[in-house]
Amino acid sequence: MTALALVGAFSAVVAAQVPPDRAIKYRQSSLATMGFHFFGILAPMAKGDRPYDAKVAARSAKFVAELSEMPWHDGFPPGSESGAPTKAKPEIWKDRAKFDKLAETMQGEAAKLAQVAGTDLATMRTQVQATAKACTNCHDEFRAK
Amino acid sequence: MTALALVGAFSAVVAAQVPPDRAIKYRQSSLATMGFHFFGILAPMAKGDRPYDAKVAARSAKFVAELSEMPWHDGFPPGSESGAPTKAKPEIWKDRAKFDKLAETMQGEAAKLAQVAGTDLATMRTQVQATAKACTNCHDEFRAK
Repeated sequence: MTALALVGAFSAVVAAQVPPDRAIKYRQSSLATMGFHFFGILAPMAKGDRPYDAKVAARSAKFVAELSEMPWHDGFPPGSESGAPTKAKPEIWKDRAKFDKLAETMQGEAAKLAQVAGTDLATMRTQVQATAKACTNCHDEFRAK
Repeated sequence: MTALALVGAFSAVVAAQVPPDRAIKYRQSSLATMGFHFFGILAPMAKGDRPYDAKVAARSAKFVAELSEMPWHDGFPPGSESGAPTKAKPEIWKDRAKFDKLAETMQGEAAKLAQVAGTDLATMRTQVQATAKACTNCHDEFRAK
């Protein structure tokens, strides 16, 4: 590969890269959308602060599972430690493998939640708690207070 | 049903209703997440402003199709005409059937896009255009400039 070809390949990668401010806005909007369903609908149902409705719970849990796949690839590219106000800690890009592992664990719990949320309140509650734990495990380490 | 039972049933519905400011934030975050993939990734690929990558296109189109189902039920409840800055026109709640029909058409186009985005650039481009038209049809009528 010539130096020129290398430069060309690198430019193509740069061109396809999302600018930091847009990546930050994207991760915030996708996580806010997930939070709406998880912390705004499912968690209050699990706590008894909102009446359990199997159909609503199943829909919100399906959305949470789908959204759980979205933030990672496009929302946390290298270089998006700054560029807009963000609570994401720089440690994400220093220990990416650990961050990715925690994100993956959350996705697994969210997928399980989508399977059981429409069953009954007790079953949903147990899996809401497991999913909330997975959120917290990552936030405690990688999100600023 | 006694009057008291009726009041109780009504209170439960009110309790399950999302407050207008949260509904507005939710519709904005879910639509922004969809816009990131559609206007930020798929449309530039279709226009040739970003290199076509079948895997990336398929993933973004899958996300767009999933997201296309999310804003409507929880994001535009009655009473959320105001409560936070919003471009949603009051006409949405005056002609809800028309709004819902346009949203449904967009979901159909997005579902088709998810099916074909990973095929090749020309096929993706045609369906990106059809989907963009469905976005615009609703924005022209129901979103303020």
